[in-house]
Amino acid sequence: MVTAAERFGEFVAGIGLPSIPEPVQATAALHALDTLGCGLAAFALDAAPYATALLEAGTRGPSTGIGSGALPARDAAFLNGTLCHALDFDDTHPTSVVHVSAVIVPAALAAAQAAGATGADLLAALVAGNEVSTRVGAAGSGEFHARGLHPTGVCGVFGATAAAARAGRLDSRRTADALGIAGSMAAGLLEFLADGSQTKQLHAGWAAQSGLAAARLAARGATGPRTVFEGDRGFFAAYLNGFDVDLEALEGLGDRWATSEIAYKPYPACHYTHAPVDALAHLMDAEGLRVDDVERIVGLTDVVGVGLVCEPASAKVLPRTPYDAKFSLPWALAYRLVHGRLDVTSFTPDALADPRVRELTPRIGYELRQYAPTPDAFGGGARVYTRDGRVLEHELRYQRGGAENPLSEAAILEKYRTNAGLALPSEALRALEHALLGLAEAPDLRFADVLAAAHSGVDS
Amino acid sequence: MVTAAERFGEFVAGIGLPSIPEPVQATAALHALDTLGCGLAAFALDAAPYATALLEAGTRGPSTGIGSGALPARDAAFLNGTLCHALDFDDTHPTSVVHVSAVIVPAALAAAQAAGATGADLLAALVAGNEVSTRVGAAGSGEFHARGLHPTGVCGVFGATAAAARAGRLDSRRTADALGIAGSMAAGLLEFLADGSQTKQLHAGWAAQSGLAAARLAARGATGPRTVFEGDRGFFAAYLNGFDVDLEALEGLGDRWATSEIAYKPYPACHYTHAPVDALAHLMDAEGLRVDDVERIVGLTDVVGVGLVCEPASAKVLPRTPYDAKFSLPWALAYRLVHGRLDVTSFTPDALADPRVRELTPRIGYELRQYAPTPDAFGGGARVYTRDGRVLEHELRYQRGGAENPLSEAAILEKYRTNAGLALPSEALRALEHALLGLAEAPDLRFADVLAAAHSGVDS
Repeated sequence: MVTAAERFGEFVAGIGLPSIPEPVQATAALHALDTLGCGLAAFALDAAPYATALLEAGTRGPSTGIGSGALPARDAAFLNGTLCHALDFDDTHPTSVVHVSAVIVPAALAAAQAAGATGADLLAALVAGNEVSTRVGAAGSGEFHARGLHPTGVCGVFGATAAAARAGRLDSRRTADALGIAGSMAAGLLEFLADGSQTKQLHAGWAAQSGLAAARLAARGATGPRTVFEGDRGFFAAYLNGFDVDLEALEGLGDRWATSEIAYKPYPACHYTHAPVDALAHLMDAEGLRVDDVERIVGLTDVVGVGLVCEPASAKVLPRTPYDAKFSLPWALAYRLVHGRLDVTSFTPDALADPRVRELTPRIGYELRQYAPTPDAFGGGARVYTRDGRVLEHELRYQRGGAENPLSEAAILEKYRTNAGLALPSEALRALEHALLGLAEAPDLRFADVLAAAHSGVDS
Repeated sequence: MVTAAERFGEFVAGIGLPSIPEPVQATAALHALDTLGCGLAAFALDAAPYATALLEAGTRGPSTGIGSGALPARDAAFLNGTLCHALDFDDTHPTSVVHVSAVIVPAALAAAQAAGATGADLLAALVAGNEVSTRVGAAGSGEFHARGLHPTGVCGVFGATAAAARAGRLDSRRTADALGIAGSMAAGLLEFLADGSQTKQLHAGWAAQSGLAAARLAARGATGPRTVFEGDRGFFAAYLNGFDVDLEALEGLGDRWATSEIAYKPYPACHYTHAPVDALAHLMDAEGLRVDDVERIVGLTDVVGVGLVCEPASAKVLPRTPYDAKFSLPWALAYRLVHGRLDVTSFTPDALADPRVRELTPRIGYELRQYAPTPDAFGGGARVYTRDGRVLEHELRYQRGGAENPLSEAAILEKYRTNAGLALPSEALRALEHALLGLAEAPDLRFADVLAAAHSGVDS
C-alpha cells in the first residue's frame, strides 16, 4: 500500500514549474506578496513584539528575518511566520480553514534561502506547501476547530515540511520521512479565545520553524512513520479520535490545485465585518454618501456574525483594544465611513482614540439575516438611513477575496503596497513586488534581503 | 477561579531548596546523574546520529551539548534530550508513563546554564519540571497511549516549560503564561510503532526545546491562556476529547512529591524483559550457574509481555537490529547468561553478531503467567533446566527500579559509571558524579562543561 505521506513525498519531490499551471504559479507568487505585506505591516506596527524572543544574540544565517537581517533558517521562519499572521490580515483556505500562506511563505522562503535556491524552486516550494497543508486540513474540515485545535498550527506544519523539503531538494523518501516526523510536531490550541491571549499569533511561526526542523532531521537520516496520516496511532487517529476523517481529501495532487482556492482578506478584521463594510463602500460610491449625510447605519449579518462582531453591543460600540476592534462591526463600518478606507492603521491605539469614529459607532446597530452557510461565503450587508430621509441598502452574498468574488490583482497589489509601505521605502517595496511577480525567472533570492531593512513605527 | 496553570505558576515560581524535602532533592540529583549517563552512552554509541541536525554551524551559546560544546540553550536541550532518550534506558514515571528526566534534565540544565544559575536553582528547576509533567500525564493516565499520543512529548513539554521558567526565574504570572503557550507546542505520536521509525527518540528533545521556547516567549511578554488545562478548547479537551480527565491529579503540589515515584531502568530494553533477566541473575548467583550448565531456559511473562518480547518467536530468536533486540526476551536472557551483564553494549550491531549468544537464543522459550496488572509492576521470572537435570525457577513480582523494588543508590551509580564510561574518561565522569551528588551546594554549573568532552566510539 502506498501511504498518503508517500504520495505527498512523490508529489513534493517531483514538483517544478513544468508541472504547475501558469495561473497557479501566478497565484502562488501573489499570495507570497500579500503575505509578506502583512508581515511588514505587523512589524511596522509592532503587533507581535515577542516575535524576536527566540533569536540568539549575534547569531547570523542565510535567511532573512523581517526587520532583523540574516538569520538561521528556523529563526527567520518563526519570526516571519509570527509577523505574517499577527494582524489576522493574511489569507485563508476556506474548506480547511488553514491560514495557509502565513506558514508556507516564511517556511519556503527561509528554507529556499538556506538552500541557495532559485525563484523557480521557491515557487515550487510554495505550491508544494499550499497543496499539502490545505489537503490535511480539508480531511478534517470543521472538526479541528470543534475540538479546540487550530488547523493553521496542526495542519500547517505538514505544509511547512513539504515546502522545506522541496526547497532543500529532498528526495521522495526523505520527504515522506519528514512528513512522518512532522506528525510529532503538530500543535496549536484555540484556548486563547477564552481570554484573548496571544498564542494564535505564534501558531504560524511555530509551524513554519517546526516544518524546517522536520525536513532537516529527515535530510540527516532520521526516519518517520509512513502511515503518519492513516495509522491507528497517526495524526488523524490521535487528534481527531473517533471522527470520520475524509482521507479522499488528501488526493487529487497535481489535478486539483488548492493554491487557487486560497482566499485573500481585504481587511485586517474578522471575516464577518467584510461584506457589511463592502456593502457600505458600495453605497458610498454609488450614492456619493459622506459622513455628514448619514443619520444611522444597520449592519446585516447572520447568527454567527452577531455572536462574533455585534454582541455584546456595549463592548462592540467602543472597543477597548485593537484586538477588540477587529471583532466590532460598528467600528469597521464607522471607520470606513469616516476615513474612506479600512486597513491596519484603522486598528491601532491611536486610531481607537479618533473622536469622529467614536462619535459615530453608537449610531450603528445590526439586523439578523440568513446567508449561505458555506464556509467561504461570509455574506452580509449594510442599510443606511440618511439625514434627508433616504433608506439605502446593499448586500454581498459572498465576501470579497474568495473564489466566488475574487479580489482583482490591482486590489491585491494595492493592499500589499499599503501594508509594505508602513515598513519599507517605496523603491524597496516596488523592488520586492517586481521580484515576486517575476519569481519564476529570478536567478536567486537576494531580492528578499530588502525585508531586513523594514523599519517600525507608523507616522500618522 | 484559580486555574491549574496559575497554581503551577505559583508553585514553580516559589519552589526552592527550603520547600523541597531533602530526600526529594537527593532523588532529583540522582535522576539527573542517571539521565546524563544515558545520554553520554547514546552519544558514544551514536544511537541518534541526527540529534545534531538542528545545530547551526559556528553558533555558540551558554549551554553544554553532549559531545558538542557550548550551544544556544534550545539547541543543547534538543540535542541532549534526544540523546538521553535514544537508548530507551532513561527513567519513567509509572502512573503517567512519562519518560520524565529525558525531557526535564536537558531542559533544566540548558535553561539554568543560560541563566547563570546555581546548583540550588538547577535542583529546584528539576523538581519543578518533574512535578508538573508527571501530574499532567497522570490526569490522562493510559488514555494518551490509547489514542496514539506519546505522553513524554505531549505532557513533557509542560514540565520542560516549568523547569525553564524556574531556571530563568520567571514570576508566577509569566510562568502561567508560559504553560499556556506550551499548550500550543504539545506534540508526539506513537505511530513510529507501526514501522520502527525513529520519531520516539526525538520526542524528549523536541519537548525540551519547546519548553525553553515557551518560557522565553513568556519572559518577553507573550501571554498564554490561563485555562490551558481546564478550558473547552484547552489541552485535555483537544487531545483527550470526550475522555473523563482526572483534574485532581494536577493537585497536591508540595504535598505529594511525584519526583520520588519516578522509576529507574536497570536495562536498556523493554520493561518486560527486566524481571525475567533479574530472576535469571538471581539463579546464576544463588546456584553458581554458568553457561555450560544450562540446557534451556523458559522466560515467564504476562500476556502483554508475550506480545511485546516473545512473539513472533522466529523474529525474537535472532534480532535483526539493535532496536529489535531491545524487544527480545530470548536475547536479553541469553546475553545475560553468556556475559554476566546486560547494558548498552549488549544491543549494538557488534553484540548482535556474538556467536555464543546466537547459539543460545533458540533454546530459550516462554511461558504465560499472570502478574499484578499495576502499570509499575512488570512482574516476570525465569525457569532454568540444567544439563545435570535440575529445574530452577525464580520470579520477581515487581521489576527492579520502581518504588516497590527500588534500585540501590550503589546500583544507580554503577549504571551511571558504566554508561558515562563509554564517553568520558574516569576522572571526568567522577567529577560530574561528585558535582551532581553535591548539587545543592554547587555555586555554579561549570561542572557540566565536561559533557562537551564526550567522545564517541566504543572500544568494547
